[in-house]
Amino acid sequence: MKPSDWKILNRKVRFGDCDSAGVIHFHNLLRWSHESWEESIEIYGIPYQEVFPDLSERINKIIFPIVNCEANFFSPIKVGNFLEIKILPKKINNHLFQVNSLFMKNEIKVAEGKLIHCSIDFESKEKVQLPDQLEKWIESCNLNDHCQEC
Amino acid sequence: MKPSDWKILNRKVRFGDCDSAGVIHFHNLLRWSHESWEESIEIYGIPYQEVFPDLSERINKIIFPIVNCEANFFSPIKVGNFLEIKILPKKINNHLFQVNSLFMKNEIKVAEGKLIHCSIDFESKEKVQLPDQLEKWIESCNLNDHCQEC
Amino acid sequence: MKPSDWKILNRKVRFGDCDSAGVIHFHNLLRWSHESWEESIEIYGIPYQEVFPDLSERINKIIFPIVNCEANFFSPIKVGNFLEIKILPKKINNHLFQVNSLFMKNEIKVAEGKLIHCSIDFESKEKVQLPDQLEKWIESCNLNDHCQEC
Amino acid sequence: MKPSDWKILNRKVRFGDCDSAGVIHFHNLLRWSHESWEESIEIYGIPYQEVFPDLSERINKIIFPIVNCEANFFSPIKVGNFLEIKILPKKINNHLFQVNSLFMKNEIKVAEGKLIHCSIDFESKEKVQLPDQLEKWIESCNLNDHCQEC
Repeated sequence: MKPSDWKILNRKVRFGDCDSAGVIHFHNLLRWSHESWEESIEIYGIPYQEVFPDLSERINKIIFPIVNCEANFFSPIKVGNFLEIKILPKKINNHLFQVNSLFMKNEIKVAEGKLIHCSIDFESKEKVQLPDQLEKWIESCNLNDHCQEC
Repeated sequence: MKPSDWKILNRKVRFGDCDSAGVIHFHNLLRWSHESWEESIEIYGIPYQEVFPDLSERINKIIFPIVNCEANFFSPIKVGNFLEIKILPKKINNHLFQVNSLFMKNEIKVAEGKLIHCSIDFESKEKVQLPDQLEKWIESCNLNDHCQEC
Repeated sequence: MKPSDWKILNRKVRFGDCDSAGVIHFHNLLRWSHESWEESIEIYGIPYQEVFPDLSERINKIIFPIVNCEANFFSPIKVGNFLEIKILPKKINNHLFQVNSLFMKNEIKVAEGKLIHCSIDFESKEKVQLPDQLEKWIESCNLNDHCQEC
Repeated sequence: MKPSDWKILNRKVRFGDCDSAGVIHFHNLLRWSHESWEESIEIYGIPYQEVFPDLSERINKIIFPIVNCEANFFSPIKVGNFLEIKILPKKINNHLFQVNSLFMKNEIKVAEGKLIHCSIDFESKEKVQLPDQLEKWIESCNLNDHCQEC
């Protein structure tokens, strides 16, 4: 396994993702940004439940509500398009992290998404430090394939 | 207030509800069916939280998962259409109830939705009797305006 | 009619708008921002089809793809919450306009959305000037109730 | 390639697919049913654009609006669950076809979806015969792996 395995993901634009103008309905891009880092976390090897808990089970848990999100659209994303998604997370401070997603179509950047998450204890609603595993994943995404082999 | 106030609702088809063919993306109809009876419950006067609890608050609560849903489409529902939605709930047995929704455009039936909900205790996951208030709402929807005035 | 009629809208947070943490699933806020200015346009009196065309009819038309969107979340938005949404559109240049949405709960700002739309001819895909009606709506939203009465 | 390659698909339940009760928001199941046969068509080898056209290009085309859909839920589908989806399409008559989707979790059937599509010419809105390629895909899905090898 090398960083590119969990830093570069793929997605096909489905019929239901698009609106009457035949292009992606804009807010789906932010849904994809979120689903992309969910997928990246899994490929990297963090058990899904440790980051995205089933809150109905009511064990002490950390959640990551979004405090800011943004998207830029550079070129139309249409039904049937095959996209490459590059994930770049970074730590902002002890309880905030950001995930940038770059959407490429045939090597051309068509859109980008940005999510800023806050790390919060589900019970107390207090800000808490980012979990270690999440920090490791962030670091691993900032390595290039070559570095990791050293 | 008369039954028609909470039995007949309205909805405008928004741009983002539709797909590339310019008609409603089909599963939105079932979302509307659900949102319609949520709205009906409110107009009838049941506090929203008693039927749709904030489960993060972790008090003993009843939830109503859907066990079956169905929709039929008779005529295209397009962006900008103004729809009248008639709600008709019925009790199936002690723990099951069904909500039918009839979607009308200019007096013509364009679609219908059906949801079957089961009444379950959130903690024990056991089937429980429908709450009294829900039963009263179901009965009230089966009265016509004239009857209620008697 | 006065500007506040189409500048201040309302929305109830529905069960299906929220995620497992019991708060709004974040990208719904941007969907609401879009639906809010669709509603504002209607209340102001512009026929819906003139701004949100049924493109399957294939008449020469203008579309308004989003080139940038952003949302900030200040406080949890939960199931059953009743929100007041204040719309503030502004013209950026001849073919770009921005719509800001302020989401209030009990007089407190809980979130804000921002959409930047570009005015494009559906056939030629060329940038075109904002339609007159849209410009008038933007101006009307920037009047306060008192001004308009003068 | 063997039929099981395009008859059996996989899906992970994402955080945003679920509602406040921690289970899949019901109408997502029907979205997944649709996306599953879109994916099956692709794996089978039909170019995506032949079945799901970009209608903004305005070439004479066939669309497949849904006339009926249904879903049954047997067991909770929760965040992080890994599902196997078995697709079974069948031809109903010259212009109607049905796609059943069976959702399995750890070999147990947790839900099923059913979509009935009608084959319609986008311009004339007349019913038309199912395209040959679609018929071949339907037949191929009704073969078992062993048969095809004969």
